[in-house]
Amino acid sequence: MILPNSTDFDPRLIAQLQFILELDRLKQILRQTSLTDNSRRENSAEHSWHLAVMAIALSEYAHKPINTNHAVQLLLLHDVVEIDAGDTFCFDEQSNQSKVERELQAAQRIFGLLPTDLAVTFRALWDEFEAGETPEAQFARAMDCFQPFLHNLQTQGGTWRKYGVSRERVLQRLQAVKIGAPALWGFVETQIAEAIAAGYLTDSVQSA
Amino acid sequence: MILPNSTDFDPRLIAQLQFILELDRLKQILRQTSLTDNSRRENSAEHSWHLAVMAIALSEYAHKPINTNHAVQLLLLHDVVEIDAGDTFCFDEQSNQSKVERELQAAQRIFGLLPTDLAVTFRALWDEFEAGETPEAQFARAMDCFQPFLHNLQTQGGTWRKYGVSRERVLQRLQAVKIGAPALWGFVETQIAEAIAAGYLTDSVQSA
Repeated sequence: MILPNSTDFDPRLIAQLQFILELDRLKQILRQTSLTDNSRRENSAEHSWHLAVMAIALSEYAHKPINTNHAVQLLLLHDVVEIDAGDTFCFDEQSNQSKVERELQAAQRIFGLLPTDLAVTFRALWDEFEAGETPEAQFARAMDCFQPFLHNLQTQGGTWRKYGVSRERVLQRLQAVKIGAPALWGFVETQIAEAIAAGYLTDSVQSA
Repeated sequence: MILPNSTDFDPRLIAQLQFILELDRLKQILRQTSLTDNSRRENSAEHSWHLAVMAIALSEYAHKPINTNHAVQLLLLHDVVEIDAGDTFCFDEQSNQSKVERELQAAQRIFGLLPTDLAVTFRALWDEFEAGETPEAQFARAMDCFQPFLHNLQTQGGTWRKYGVSRERVLQRLQAVKIGAPALWGFVETQIAEAIAAGYLTDSVQSA
């Protein structure tokens, strides 16, 4: 309804509304991770919300003093590119090879819907998360790994068991937690040991 | 998996994790509004994410200078009480009578999962949104009305048509936009006129 009458309004507002309507599609992008009651797969929009609230509730565990609100902004936008590029499962090596190119094109198109000043701001936030170099990006990336870790613990192994993921690969993936929120690392290690004991995760050293 | 071993960890962290796991349930709370492609109803977690990004993209339309990040925090938390209280459809007068009491109890329980300092902070954010008195709360409440308005326009009337909602009730509901983001009001009025012309909305004055 908005587009046919777009000539009646300020083009800046129309561009903002086009972006906002486009965002709605992120609610259709399904991740591999399930909700904690295992009823269905999580989508990337609700995942982004969950991470943003987690960042507020857990900011004290950041490795360096951070601007929590800035980390929240990074998390709100970090998955928007999946509208075009789809969700890339972190343990799928083949898809991860083409991920960068697909996501760069998506960022160009989707943030490009906005008026230039906002497009630049939003794109910079997405680039910052991807680069993972600022304290806020590092903490945000820690949250992005820690949340599916919690979900996998709650769903008796979830995607680890479904795809036979080994302890080594989980530990490798969770390095982001060690970097951005090292105070959570003790919890992570203990829970991984329990997940192995419970058979939720394969200890590939033992099974080799 | 987390709770049985909670004695091994700092009780503060365990309380934070219990809150974070509880948040997951907001993804199961369905609103009356549909996604813009009408494929399914929207849930309150993805709705909250959408509003938070909208607040960043549209902050220039606030009626007074606002701290955008503060408005984002209000929006991220404003629906958390629905985990216990359910979503109350804005045009359902009966449910709205019991809404306040149900949501107060929910706020008490859910934010009460957190360590006291965080519980106080989160509860204050929720109270501020509910009171709607600060510029940030007024802008946040404008976003909370403007987003389903956009969805109803995109879905050929959506909940307006499904429940036979009249122009007067929509205008009444959208007063929050007039208060918190008056620069969007011209757009709202024009689109309502078009929605009536298209039969998406009943002009109850004409039909009376």
